Amino acid sequence: MYDPIEKASVLIEALPYMRKFFGKTFVIKYGGSAMTDPQRKKGVILDIILLKYIGINPILVHGGGPQLTEMLKRLGKKANFVNGLRVTDRETMEVAEMVLAGKVNKDIVALINQNGGKAVGISGKDGQTIMAKQADGNLGLVGEVTEIDTKLLKLLSNEGYIPVISSIGVGEDGETYNINADYVAGQVAAALQAEKLIILTDVRGVWLDKNDPDSFLPVLNRARAQELIEQNIIDGGMIPKVNACLQALDGGVASAHLLDGRPPHSLLLEIFTDGGVGTMITK
Amino acid sequence: MYDPIEKASVLIEALPYMRKFFGKTFVIKYGGSAMTDPQRKKGVILDIILLKYIGINPILVHGGGPQLTEMLKRLGKKANFVNGLRVTDRETMEVAEMVLAGKVNKDIVALINQNGGKAVGISGKDGQTIMAKQADGNLGLVGEVTEIDTKLLKLLSNEGYIPVISSIGVGEDGETYNINADYVAGQVAAALQAEKLIILTDVRGVWLDKNDPDSFLPVLNRARAQELIEQNIIDGGMIPKVNACLQALDGGVASAHLLDGRPPHSLLLEIFTDGGVGTMITK
Amino acid sequence: MYDPIEKASVLIEALPYMRKFFGKTFVIKYGGSAMTDPQRKKGVILDIILLKYIGINPILVHGGGPQLTEMLKRLGKKANFVNGLRVTDRETMEVAEMVLAGKVNKDIVALINQNGGKAVGISGKDGQTIMAKQADGNLGLVGEVTEIDTKLLKLLSNEGYIPVISSIGVGEDGETYNINADYVAGQVAAALQAEKLIILTDVRGVWLDKNDPDSFLPVLNRARAQELIEQNIIDGGMIPKVNACLQALDGGVASAHLLDGRPPHSLLLEIFTDGGVGTMITK
Amino acid sequence: MYDPIEKASVLIEALPYMRKFFGKTFVIKYGGSAMTDPQRKKGVILDIILLKYIGINPILVHGGGPQLTEMLKRLGKKANFVNGLRVTDRETMEVAEMVLAGKVNKDIVALINQNGGKAVGISGKDGQTIMAKQADGNLGLVGEVTEIDTKLLKLLSNEGYIPVISSIGVGEDGETYNINADYVAGQVAAALQAEKLIILTDVRGVWLDKNDPDSFLPVLNRARAQELIEQNIIDGGMIPKVNACLQALDGGVASAHLLDGRPPHSLLLEIFTDGGVGTMITK
Amino acid sequence: MYDPIEKASVLIEALPYMRKFFGKTFVIKYGGSAMTDPQRKKGVILDIILLKYIGINPILVHGGGPQLTEMLKRLGKKANFVNGLRVTDRETMEVAEMVLAGKVNKDIVALINQNGGKAVGISGKDGQTIMAKQADGNLGLVGEVTEIDTKLLKLLSNEGYIPVISSIGVGEDGETYNINADYVAGQVAAALQAEKLIILTDVRGVWLDKNDPDSFLPVLNRARAQELIEQNIIDGGMIPKVNACLQALDGGVASAHLLDGRPPHSLLLEIFTDGGVGTMITK
Amino acid sequence: MYDPIEKASVLIEALPYMRKFFGKTFVIKYGGSAMTDPQRKKGVILDIILLKYIGINPILVHGGGPQLTEMLKRLGKKANFVNGLRVTDRETMEVAEMVLAGKVNKDIVALINQNGGKAVGISGKDGQTIMAKQADGNLGLVGEVTEIDTKLLKLLSNEGYIPVISSIGVGEDGETYNINADYVAGQVAAALQAEKLIILTDVRGVWLDKNDPDSFLPVLNRARAQELIEQNIIDGGMIPKVNACLQALDGGVASAHLLDGRPPHSLLLEIFTDGGVGTMITK
Repeated sequence: MYDPIEKASVLIEALPYMRKFFGKTFVIKYGGSAMTDPQRKKGVILDIILLKYIGINPILVHGGGPQLTEMLKRLGKKANFVNGLRVTDRETMEVAEMVLAGKVNKDIVALINQNGGKAVGISGKDGQTIMAKQADGNLGLVGEVTEIDTKLLKLLSNEGYIPVISSIGVGEDGETYNINADYVAGQVAAALQAEKLIILTDVRGVWLDKNDPDSFLPVLNRARAQELIEQNIIDGGMIPKVNACLQALDGGVASAHLLDGRPPHSLLLEIFTDGGVGTMITK
Repeated sequence: MYDPIEKASVLIEALPYMRKFFGKTFVIKYGGSAMTDPQRKKGVILDIILLKYIGINPILVHGGGPQLTEMLKRLGKKANFVNGLRVTDRETMEVAEMVLAGKVNKDIVALINQNGGKAVGISGKDGQTIMAKQADGNLGLVGEVTEIDTKLLKLLSNEGYIPVISSIGVGEDGETYNINADYVAGQVAAALQAEKLIILTDVRGVWLDKNDPDSFLPVLNRARAQELIEQNIIDGGMIPKVNACLQALDGGVASAHLLDGRPPHSLLLEIFTDGGVGTMITK
Repeated sequence: MYDPIEKASVLIEALPYMRKFFGKTFVIKYGGSAMTDPQRKKGVILDIILLKYIGINPILVHGGGPQLTEMLKRLGKKANFVNGLRVTDRETMEVAEMVLAGKVNKDIVALINQNGGKAVGISGKDGQTIMAKQADGNLGLVGEVTEIDTKLLKLLSNEGYIPVISSIGVGEDGETYNINADYVAGQVAAALQAEKLIILTDVRGVWLDKNDPDSFLPVLNRARAQELIEQNIIDGGMIPKVNACLQALDGGVASAHLLDGRPPHSLLLEIFTDGGVGTMITK
Repeated sequence: MYDPIEKASVLIEALPYMRKFFGKTFVIKYGGSAMTDPQRKKGVILDIILLKYIGINPILVHGGGPQLTEMLKRLGKKANFVNGLRVTDRETMEVAEMVLAGKVNKDIVALINQNGGKAVGISGKDGQTIMAKQADGNLGLVGEVTEIDTKLLKLLSNEGYIPVISSIGVGEDGETYNINADYVAGQVAAALQAEKLIILTDVRGVWLDKNDPDSFLPVLNRARAQELIEQNIIDGGMIPKVNACLQALDGGVASAHLLDGRPPHSLLLEIFTDGGVGTMITK
Repeated sequence: MYDPIEKASVLIEALPYMRKFFGKTFVIKYGGSAMTDPQRKKGVILDIILLKYIGINPILVHGGGPQLTEMLKRLGKKANFVNGLRVTDRETMEVAEMVLAGKVNKDIVALINQNGGKAVGISGKDGQTIMAKQADGNLGLVGEVTEIDTKLLKLLSNEGYIPVISSIGVGEDGETYNINADYVAGQVAAALQAEKLIILTDVRGVWLDKNDPDSFLPVLNRARAQELIEQNIIDGGMIPKVNACLQALDGGVASAHLLDGRPPHSLLLEIFTDGGVGTMITK
Repeated sequence: MYDPIEKASVLIEALPYMRKFFGKTFVIKYGGSAMTDPQRKKGVILDIILLKYIGINPILVHGGGPQLTEMLKRLGKKANFVNGLRVTDRETMEVAEMVLAGKVNKDIVALINQNGGKAVGISGKDGQTIMAKQADGNLGLVGEVTEIDTKLLKLLSNEGYIPVISSIGVGEDGETYNINADYVAGQVAAALQAEKLIILTDVRGVWLDKNDPDSFLPVLNRARAQELIEQNIIDGGMIPKVNACLQALDGGVASAHLLDGRPPHSLLLEIFTDGGVGTMITK
């Protein structure tokens, strides 16, 4: 155990980072085990509240795949596939909206409020924050972002709230769309001209060779990331995450981070240490 | 059909009411058939948007009993009774929150936005707007309001949004409570020092004798309402509604209205005609 | 007579127009019979107050030819002509200012206030809102606008007042000028970057052939209007009105309207119906 | 002539008074020869502009008896008397409003603007600033103040304008009333909680014995003023002026001044010298 | 050395304290070795900057006895005694002002700015923040506070600056006074209705018996503190410090702290641990 | 002596200048005898306070050579020369800062406050207003401005304070630099986009031939000033003053003035007379 004086020194060590990021906006895609395991969940939430207290404006975006899958199962809803891809039919969309906006979102909000922050949860429908359209005719109500209205987010953030956004979008015609939360986070970060986009996931970041721990890439520029996708070195579920990062950078965000949300305080470590713990993608 | 000139006259007839209520807050408990029948739903929503455009600040509170019952049925969830009263166990509460905050709330928000208004939906957890505690140890997670924080509601309303509130409260300990939406509306109206509390329901208001249409009471004062409850003339489901009205009046609201939300534009008629169409309870 | 429900529907029909014009500025040249006939006067005034309540910023400009002629007659003042044109000598100017700024202006202001609006009447001298110079050396104190200072107009309008402007201007040297009210309205609309300039008069608008009712032009673009003037199809007293419209359009106003102010609610009909009732000139 | 250095010293001598009155409101009843003689007029106007530049908020109230008399004469309007008192019939009222709000008011406004100030002229109708009722059934439309709405005055004054008010009031029913300008000034001063009410007139102030110059009273308290009225030492046209002062003091104004507006800069001398030049009435 | 994850935990442990003190004002009397020893100095400064970053408003008050003594020695200025007490003659006062406001104050300001804060240093003369009068005719220009004007302090603090105040006051007549910095801090804390007054010194706080470490008093209420002074248990240089605390408490400050500024981070430890490290005096 | 009426006329004569400079910023380099001779000092201070009261924003910059020389002498500090130029070593710098920021600055502040203004004195360290670097490696801690941060100056000026700035700068590394006050004033004027830079000194301005009073140049443009420097007609101590003026003009200041601060009210005369009394350099 550390003695109090050593603890105080630790606070002081954080000062240069506080100074650097004071008043800046961080869009955090909150997902993976950091959102399902209760202890990890609380850990990440405390990190986020801390950011708010030291003058950073965190904005959370979340999806909720596992919770949705579970609820569909409880409802006995069978998945519907077209060409091997899961189709989001209207019934699935309804359940998805309920689970994301009514359960996952409010759980996060309550957890933040209980631990000393002040959160407000919204879906993309609220204030028409996320306008969307159908992404692919074959996949039903899977959407892609057409426009982000930042007015409500700025209003809440400036008044001391931490906005928590469900990755639900709404079409011009009022149709509800389920959107990949990584992409929503990337677009929100770009629209807000955020300092950082941080995507919490269950892997540490990007490796040249997953079998070689030494090949981990702590920093990566935009061009190199593109290359690695083309060379299939970045592959699978990492592709949309890296693409969301690239979209954010294209939109003016200063840096984008892929981060393993599972180890304690990885969020703070990425922000408050020079080396960081994940992969940072820069312009 | 009316000719355009006659239509314009109708707009002009509304002027004295616009003047009277300009800048005032109306808390509207939205429920009953006006919330389930698609056509009636749209009718009420348009009325509410109109109120916003003419300078009134409408704030909506909704429950969602029928939608919850249906979802519980779909999930095969059996009702649990203690002494003949339905108990809200934790699983029911979870489903209730999803249905109210994730489905009913977002449907209302989307409908408002699609028809030209700007709505933001929140539950009592957001911004810790509705603090609650257990109402009765035997009924599980049925709650009663302990405090309303109006900060978020005022912020949204002043910025041009129509706030839409799910009747979900949160305890000091983070516990989620399901609260009767009439009471929530009454408490919100009192906390905001609203001009009016308007409860939309499926009956016209209060009668001395339900079999005698002539005994309908268009106006009622606080003392008389109390009396009618004691004399069992106001009974059944009307009791909590009238009690919510009385709580609002006690809290400083100028008048409270019980209104049948089913006939077209009953909301506007109650506000924009001298006689009104429901029962108004005054101090 | 219409029943209340039908009346409410009429309010709702106006919603899309309210949405479209919310927060926009309309400069209305108020003149002709709509300003002299008491019943028509009240009709137009109510229409204008309604615009203010639904979030539009109306700004009125008025002249007062008939009232001036009458007062000059009462004073036994003989008209003075040079080359067949009436000269505004200093004495006439003094009477004109009294009649416009002291009588016509205050009558309009009082009528608005009595009917539920809040008006403030100014002449071009107040806050040096209308700077002017001599238009034609032979005509004495007839002026033309050199500059509009919008500060006072915006201040009043933003605080909830309806500004009412007499078409009196003031020179650098302090000289008072009488200016054609149509031109003043056009210049004020341009300076405020108004959404609409609306000129109320005693004819319906522009016809290709005054004897052929079917030749009425509900819409006209800028180039076509110019052409019609050159071809003498627009002639007489309509020329300065159309020119005022063209000046407004040149200055950035979105559309300009010529309207018969005599039929009841023609102002509302022009704004709240798709076809309108007068002639709209667009870019 | 003074050399420049001596002139600069004079500016410096005014500093303690500038400091004392910075940000304070002075209501000035502008009348008498100071309003009709061109040279005196300009002198007083310059004094008022100077007050505005050094951080005082002057607000002018004016009547216009002589100008009205002249116009009535030109119109051949015969005076109508009841019990020896002149009756303000509707026709006289109309002419009075035109002369006051359309001529005298705008002349003052233009003169201020031409000399480097920024004035806005209003009548009591504008923004319903002066609400009034009939003072005496026998005198027709002579009114007395029932309420002053200070909103418009404060708005204009805070934005750098000098408000100039015609002593015209308006009744609940829209009736126009002519009100004694001294009383209007007193009521406006009270409503604004002004620092000073200053009434410019054609006599120096109050004497115990008009034939004895040594009996001039430079300072007078409220009780003494009341006494002098009861003893008929203050009499004639001075009575309403002193009463206006007493009303202002009763309403919270710090001091009220009666002043001869004819000698050059008497306004500045009253404010910027310890002794003053008129009669000051204090609590 | 601690690993990064443990360091992050330390930040998180501070959250409840951040929440508790967010937006509160702490007046800190900065003195003793913490102001003269370079390393300790930097330590305290970093602690103060940290407070600012986490949303607390620190306001510093300093004296400068040792630095003054040294400068007087360099100038060969002999101390002047009356009845055994040192007299602050005008020459000493001049040197004191130079040393405090020109050297000690600017050193602190520069140190804060260099380490990531934004400080503005003022003396009591600036904005007439500290009005004073002679404390004792025999001691020359030693002063006591007569009034604190908080306007400048609030202005600076609200704009993100850390105000640093030299304990110099000014009399009505412009005379400069040297005031005990503990008292200045106490009065400033009272005038600002601060949450805490914290006096940094070279002893740990208050003991019942200085020879018995176990008799240290971590908490003390107002009455008990008074008692201990009367019983001479609090004595010597501790008396003015405790009196300053009592004045602050009397003025509405929530708690006052005596603290040894020498151990690293004692300031943070007092604020961010439940037990604290010094003596806290409460109401 | 002048009679009061003549005095009032003098105030009125200043009106056109008040109008011209209302709301403008004047940066005044205060130095020379106007800062050492008590009577002249008070004269200049009163002039500056007057400027503030009539709506101009004066900002003072001062050095303090003579006071520094005297203090160094009292301390027995020997001057250190390299190549004939005085070197500012660290000890001299310390004394300079004390004298300028702790004595000269606070004396000016107190004098302003005592005479009815509200001043706040800062050094370039406060709010990091003046960032600097070493000007010449041989001269020690003599600095030159690298950046002016106007935030604190605007904040104070807008709140009614007169900022008084010591010509002390601070390096990126925290080093303190002594900077020529004329240059500081020029740079501050440029950074604030001031209307005027006014340098008070002990000579009247610029002559073509110092022995020919008729060759005095009341106005000079930028090119001509440059020429006169090249031709050695402007020489000696006047060169840095003229260069400071040229820097201000290059930075966007409208005019720069060299002025003899010794004659009474020369500051007011330069501003409030058409001819002025010093040399004005224009673009």
